[in-house]
Amino acid sequence: MDTLVDRQKILSERLGQAATITDPVDMERYCRDWHGDVATGAVAVLRPASAQEVSEAVRLCAELQLAIVPQGGNTGLALGGIPDNPSGQVVLSLERMNSIRAIMPDDFSAVVEAGCVLEAIKNEVEAAGCYFPLALGAQGSCQIGGNVSTNAGGINVLRYGMTRELVLGLEVVLADGTIWSGLSTLRKDNRGVDLKQLFIGAEGTMGIITAVAIKLLPQPEQIETAMLALPSVEAAMALYRRARRDCCDLMSAFELMRPEAFSFARMAYPDLPMPLSTEYPAYVLMELTGGGLVDVKALMEGFLTREMESGEVLDGVFAASRQQALNLWKVREGMNEGQAMYGPHLRTDLSVPLSQVAAYIEEASNAVARLMPDCLVAAYGHVGDGNIHFNILPPRGASPDEVAGRIKQGKTLLFDILDRFNGSISAEHGVGRLKRDDFEKRLPEAQKLMLHALKNALDPQGRLNPNCQISRSEHEISH
Amino acid sequence: MDTLVDRQKILSERLGQAATITDPVDMERYCRDWHGDVATGAVAVLRPASAQEVSEAVRLCAELQLAIVPQGGNTGLALGGIPDNPSGQVVLSLERMNSIRAIMPDDFSAVVEAGCVLEAIKNEVEAAGCYFPLALGAQGSCQIGGNVSTNAGGINVLRYGMTRELVLGLEVVLADGTIWSGLSTLRKDNRGVDLKQLFIGAEGTMGIITAVAIKLLPQPEQIETAMLALPSVEAAMALYRRARRDCCDLMSAFELMRPEAFSFARMAYPDLPMPLSTEYPAYVLMELTGGGLVDVKALMEGFLTREMESGEVLDGVFAASRQQALNLWKVREGMNEGQAMYGPHLRTDLSVPLSQVAAYIEEASNAVARLMPDCLVAAYGHVGDGNIHFNILPPRGASPDEVAGRIKQGKTLLFDILDRFNGSISAEHGVGRLKRDDFEKRLPEAQKLMLHALKNALDPQGRLNPNCQISRSEHEISH
Repeated sequence: MDTLVDRQKILSERLGQAATITDPVDMERYCRDWHGDVATGAVAVLRPASAQEVSEAVRLCAELQLAIVPQGGNTGLALGGIPDNPSGQVVLSLERMNSIRAIMPDDFSAVVEAGCVLEAIKNEVEAAGCYFPLALGAQGSCQIGGNVSTNAGGINVLRYGMTRELVLGLEVVLADGTIWSGLSTLRKDNRGVDLKQLFIGAEGTMGIITAVAIKLLPQPEQIETAMLALPSVEAAMALYRRARRDCCDLMSAFELMRPEAFSFARMAYPDLPMPLSTEYPAYVLMELTGGGLVDVKALMEGFLTREMESGEVLDGVFAASRQQALNLWKVREGMNEGQAMYGPHLRTDLSVPLSQVAAYIEEASNAVARLMPDCLVAAYGHVGDGNIHFNILPPRGASPDEVAGRIKQGKTLLFDILDRFNGSISAEHGVGRLKRDDFEKRLPEAQKLMLHALKNALDPQGRLNPNCQISRSEHEISH
Repeated sequence: MDTLVDRQKILSERLGQAATITDPVDMERYCRDWHGDVATGAVAVLRPASAQEVSEAVRLCAELQLAIVPQGGNTGLALGGIPDNPSGQVVLSLERMNSIRAIMPDDFSAVVEAGCVLEAIKNEVEAAGCYFPLALGAQGSCQIGGNVSTNAGGINVLRYGMTRELVLGLEVVLADGTIWSGLSTLRKDNRGVDLKQLFIGAEGTMGIITAVAIKLLPQPEQIETAMLALPSVEAAMALYRRARRDCCDLMSAFELMRPEAFSFARMAYPDLPMPLSTEYPAYVLMELTGGGLVDVKALMEGFLTREMESGEVLDGVFAASRQQALNLWKVREGMNEGQAMYGPHLRTDLSVPLSQVAAYIEEASNAVARLMPDCLVAAYGHVGDGNIHFNILPPRGASPDEVAGRIKQGKTLLFDILDRFNGSISAEHGVGRLKRDDFEKRLPEAQKLMLHALKNALDPQGRLNPNCQISRSEHEISH
């Protein structure tokens, strides 16, 4: 067995200095997570600049008996992209594979390399008169390869689906270094088992995505945004069902907030004007998008007028300008940032069947109030998809141990209730290493066997992102 | 080795008479294809009535060293559902698993058994105020399990996607008889590798789908249909791009036809009124659907008025009633039926990138005119997805050998051109046994290795639908 330094030297010599970082200080930013909760290390950070170089890196890692943790923009929320074994793993960053290979407006598609930053893609395709709907808070840093590997969600899922639904084709480097060129831009292709699906949402455990063929849409010229106050979460969900019918597929966001959202937003942005009285039980941030010959503004006005007149909606504000709309979204974002400023707390990413959103929030809120009365709850989310971020914040001034205890207690509490609702512990963030144990614990035996069979079929040595999604034991890799 | 009769007897005794057909006459309809091109046989037709019974049948077939060909409504167009080895295979029909387990309007989802006829599902969910958008010619006979197994397309793909995009969860019996219960109705669930994707479009080679959780939508109350005449296929594709922008995701169909469509339709329905002069180079059947507060009729009128005034569209008819709309669709359907009446011919199901539709049709039409001048061409399709049914009809009165020769020549001609366009030989019908050789011939090595690795992982004995999609040799099954 070579020493750590030997292996670092071989990597650097064979892959080139530009492609190999071994200085611990330079490696730091690749080895800590987005929230700053975990900091670890790696044998090296590899930065190949082409699929061919990724392939060479994969083969060399096999020679050196190193495992590989593929990484995009490192904005993941489930610890899927950072190592957990500093002496046996390299990080393989796709950041140098960042060229947009082609934008084809007449095909409504584009081919982009894995390391392209999402926002750069969005801007480039917009300049070409098109639209790529994937949108999330981290879009200025996250990379499309990571978005696909985690099957990222975001604020437009309601209308355009998860990342999976926006992928037409993939280029992937497999565990043995083979490059699979599956970058088709066909809209409709039904040639048997759809292999690309195996890599979407697999968080790098089945192969390393090096490029993506994405679906594009026409740029929506009209965006109409409103914030509405409602008497209950149940009323908000009923509003969703009416909006789903009446706004006819043009609804791109339906975000639930509760009054605490405004307190958190004010923590983050003390000067942010509050659009509505902060005393209602539930709020909805609703957005319609469209263009061409459809009058989206008239549609929103018609819907809001009816809802206000019927008394179902208690109060509301309809953004009269893009700036006003952005201010409404700022409450939503500020709520997240305010929580982050609050200190360590339990963040979850749950989903339940649509009809159960209100019941879940009520039951979970009551349980927290009863069993963890000193904690704050922030429950909000993309509820048009049944996706709730139910977060629990320990009391200020609690010791680190107390905080850790509350986080653990809260998670058990929420997940136990969730199991009775047949919910998911990961609606959009993925499993990674953070949720692996909770995921595996709930895996039906048949599903576990299939996952292991697939992993063994595609990565028999367990070299790709070990311990991510499923635990390593059954894919031990020899060092 | 037991004799055929022994094995039939064991099947019948162990699975019950209601679940076992062995009479050759009674087996006939399960052993011939929809077009009537192929008639074969089987050891038995098994008709289990529950996932448990499917599991028992699978285990018993393993004992008896029989392979299994799963079958839905037997309306497939790629020979994926009928046996190719009468002495070693059983047909496993899901037709008795035909109950709708649940319709949940507030979850916008339903759970249905594999053997439910598509039209029955559509009607039932409609009665519950919802809408299941999958729609195809065979919907009165095809079954949802087959739709999912073949990832069926149909006339609404443009707006709602292939069947894959309408599936929330699956129940599957695996090759070893294990039942995987993955019938989640969550809209958003990102717990790692999405196993259900492996079975969608796999035509029963990876497992036997026994039930499906499907997405529902609000019922669209407004359907507006128009048929438009254009100066060229290129102009039709440009119209598509404008419609895609201006009609804002509300376009549910964009079907290209050429003048020959009317001749074929007249063969099928001699009394069908022709909606337009039949002398234009290209026609489009376009449909917008929506409901609620969107005025779909005004949208269609606005679009058509602008297109007519600009001179881009040469002539058009806008259906003033549902009956008129159905008459327009009847031209589209009659074109298919007229071709069927014509006799054996080459049917294809191709796709090319959207921008290449006109170029492909032109190049292929010219090649047929040059090299097969006595043949007729019918080129039409769901061109909003780049999907072309380019069919070649041998001259009337040609001998069966001549017909077979023309079909072979035409296929080689079309596929050779298609390869240069990076197209797909199966846009929506699947691979089955019919297109297996053409599919395998074009498989990149990396993809072939992955497909075999997956098949070996999930069905190591090659017992599920052998010879479908990929050839048997590498999954030999011992008899």
